[in-house]
Amino acid sequence: MLKVYGMSFSGNCYKVKLLLEHLQRPYQWQEVDIMTGATRTSDFLTMNPNGKVPTLELEPGKYLPESNAILYYLAQETPYFPTDSFAQADVLRWMFFEQYSHEPYIAMLPGNHPRQVELPKLREKGYGALQVMEQHLSNHDYCVENRYSIADIALFAYTHVAADGGFDLGEFPAIRGWVDRVRGQEGFVEMG
Amino acid sequence: MLKVYGMSFSGNCYKVKLLLEHLQRPYQWQEVDIMTGATRTSDFLTMNPNGKVPTLELEPGKYLPESNAILYYLAQETPYFPTDSFAQADVLRWMFFEQYSHEPYIAMLPGNHPRQVELPKLREKGYGALQVMEQHLSNHDYCVENRYSIADIALFAYTHVAADGGFDLGEFPAIRGWVDRVRGQEGFVEMG
Repeated sequence: MLKVYGMSFSGNCYKVKLLLEHLQRPYQWQEVDIMTGATRTSDFLTMNPNGKVPTLELEPGKYLPESNAILYYLAQETPYFPTDSFAQADVLRWMFFEQYSHEPYIAMLPGNHPRQVELPKLREKGYGALQVMEQHLSNHDYCVENRYSIADIALFAYTHVAADGGFDLGEFPAIRGWVDRVRGQEGFVEMG
Repeated sequence: MLKVYGMSFSGNCYKVKLLLEHLQRPYQWQEVDIMTGATRTSDFLTMNPNGKVPTLELEPGKYLPESNAILYYLAQETPYFPTDSFAQADVLRWMFFEQYSHEPYIAMLPGNHPRQVELPKLREKGYGALQVMEQHLSNHDYCVENRYSIADIALFAYTHVAADGGFDLGEFPAIRGWVDRVRGQEGFVEMG
């Protein structure tokens, strides 16, 4: 059975859980507390040398790290990944956007953020990423082909809790509409 | 004909050029100077709302941003992307690692970096990413399936010039051997 090493309150781990629930695939969830160093043990580093959750165990000895690579793997030949090759690349385009231009800024916790001095700059980049999404979602229901896909799952994970990071979604009606559409998907579960 | 909007001295743009050269696919290169705001014009933002290079034009009106999504698109059904589904996901695993844990730290320019106050922390994360690569390449010739793929191209772009960012590759013999193996690939071209 698939086993997910993850932390329930991590958006990156939630992505994997959400897709597995949509797919109704059986899986085991192994809670890993990154705060107590559980991702830095030699056992964990054998599974993922980068010491991060989520990490998917396909079978003992066969592991896949990186939330968006896991989404890609699990979504193959399901309705959550398109069949057209340009659309497939476009899904990945939004997923790379998420990891490079979105998550590092949106996933902040302002209160105890180690980069206090930089906070205004980080906040500005976060709003820039939200603006890119807002513009796209103003005339598309979903990221790619107007169909819900793993691109939406990847971006939903941190966007829907952006307020926790101090972002005001009041000025982003298209994003708020999309958040509601994601919540309406069959098998949807909340984070946590 | 394919058209790449890129900047010659950007590692992310070089990835696309390197793959196109390996594939011997004809393409047009449109140099874009990000320093003069050329990626913030309304024309450019129509192609890529995130305002970044590289952006691939497949045909007028059809664009694909994000270097690693472009690699994925171009590598389909070529020897640079594996056929096994787990290996495909593993390629993407290294490409997401590159954009999240590697490039943001390795691609620094220490001299004029806006985050001077954070430099030691950024440097530490960069060396952490190199250590992950070193460990893997100590017993693998390439990232995935011991075959050269777009995962290697993605990681090569900034790793091979890590010294420019102040990283000493002296302690990373496996990475240096891999850099040489990449340079030996048919159709290889240097950055710039």
